[in-house]
Amino acid sequence: MNTIKNIRQHSCFGGQQYIYSHHSTSTECTMRFGLFLPPQAEISPVPLLYWLSGLTCTEENFIIKAGAQRVAAELGIAILTPDTSPRNLNIPGENDSDDLGSGAGFYVDATEAPWAKNYNMYTYITKELPALVSAYFPIDQERIGIFGHSMGGHGALTIALRHPDYYKSVSAFSPICSPMRSPWGIKAFEHYLGFDKTKWQDYDSTLLITSRGWKGPSLLIDQGTNDPFLETQLKPELLSTACDAANVKLNLRLQKGYDHSYFFIATFIEDHLRFHAKVLQGCNI
Amino acid sequence: MNTIKNIRQHSCFGGQQYIYSHHSTSTECTMRFGLFLPPQAEISPVPLLYWLSGLTCTEENFIIKAGAQRVAAELGIAILTPDTSPRNLNIPGENDSDDLGSGAGFYVDATEAPWAKNYNMYTYITKELPALVSAYFPIDQERIGIFGHSMGGHGALTIALRHPDYYKSVSAFSPICSPMRSPWGIKAFEHYLGFDKTKWQDYDSTLLITSRGWKGPSLLIDQGTNDPFLETQLKPELLSTACDAANVKLNLRLQKGYDHSYFFIATFIEDHLRFHAKVLQGCNI
Repeated sequence: MNTIKNIRQHSCFGGQQYIYSHHSTSTECTMRFGLFLPPQAEISPVPLLYWLSGLTCTEENFIIKAGAQRVAAELGIAILTPDTSPRNLNIPGENDSDDLGSGAGFYVDATEAPWAKNYNMYTYITKELPALVSAYFPIDQERIGIFGHSMGGHGALTIALRHPDYYKSVSAFSPICSPMRSPWGIKAFEHYLGFDKTKWQDYDSTLLITSRGWKGPSLLIDQGTNDPFLETQLKPELLSTACDAANVKLNLRLQKGYDHSYFFIATFIEDHLRFHAKVLQGCNI
Repeated sequence: MNTIKNIRQHSCFGGQQYIYSHHSTSTECTMRFGLFLPPQAEISPVPLLYWLSGLTCTEENFIIKAGAQRVAAELGIAILTPDTSPRNLNIPGENDSDDLGSGAGFYVDATEAPWAKNYNMYTYITKELPALVSAYFPIDQERIGIFGHSMGGHGALTIALRHPDYYKSVSAFSPICSPMRSPWGIKAFEHYLGFDKTKWQDYDSTLLITSRGWKGPSLLIDQGTNDPFLETQLKPELLSTACDAANVKLNLRLQKGYDHSYFFIATFIEDHLRFHAKVLQGCNI
């Protein structure tokens, strides 16, 4: 277990918003993550939500823009916000586009050169961070949920569906519901995973719903109707169809007039936090 | 009256968050401002709060970081967020430091070269923007308040104290209470206003309290005790002393452990919005 370094700390709604850095064994580079600890964490372990961000984001976007700390402090929930990729690796082209390389890890374990050595965000999120959290922070490991936005919505759904014993609740904002049928997803998977599409299937929420189902609480998804990526990249209708066929409960809310931005996320983040809180601690909703 | 251009628009908490650009006659350059219109503005004119930001900020910081739209939408209050200076003027040194030039207009009308032609943020805020708002937006001109942070807290206080008939309520987060006794303020005033300190007095809140008083509602100021600028730059005790002597009511709240960041602002923004709402519309607090 490597040490972690507290590089920023701010009082916020009676809790503390931290940013940490550490050397990651999964990605073999320095990674940063944000952690909000509510005031209740001073007394006893608290539930934790992982928030997975979308393309181009760092660990900071959600912390600054979502306005989640207010409700998290009220409900006594911690929120961990990882970065969206390894960075500063000098991989050719790593900073050339918004949808591949830096800021676009897509929450997979890459198998193809030049990405395979470092682009292991799946292992980073599902193994390394939970071990680190368990070692360093007052978190109740029995009460873990996960949510995210866009690429991070894809990440949250796929990770929860593959680890239902660990992640008790999952929700998403405007997720890439089927990356195998999204230009963003296809580009990323071709580069990170190669052209054998059988290797892609464990990273596609709609296929995972079909192959594994979900016995946890209803999935909550918010999707803005004015989202410019709705029809080309996100395709919630594919997830809806898969859930219907697999008898998985999905609460898909189409929010009229909202777009893909954090203004949309901020508007509905309270609903998501109360949804997770209800599942994780049976607290007021 | 020049035209204004809507350059961004996002649905947010049932209202609309806009960013506009326009050619300013006060600063003789293109300026941007943000405007949040709550859902109530679709029906009838609403109260308006001006938010003045601090050093290095643009019109965007408050919009993204403060989390104000939620409560503004509930209370039916619009919020206008100007930029903090003219920009892109090719004035020598305009981008060389955080506390002079771009992002550091200090809400004064400059009289000294090379700033005098453009750096007229006082006139921009107090004359040009109100006329523009009146022409274009559903705002109740009888219900205007003003607030701000740091340099913008100084701006909000000085502007309200000099125009008490227009600004019915004023509050601030960690304001520069006496820029004449603050290194930031002294540097800015020397460059923008010259070395004759009699010209500085109308831009110093503590002196304005003494010279003009304030018959409006109690001033509300939040100040974090862990703010690194508290003792050197902000000096709320000077304002407190001036208010005591002038019999002006000041609600100065020292918030333990909070710093100078938007995490601090976000924590207490709801209190400020409800304070202004109570004054401006007698709505629930």
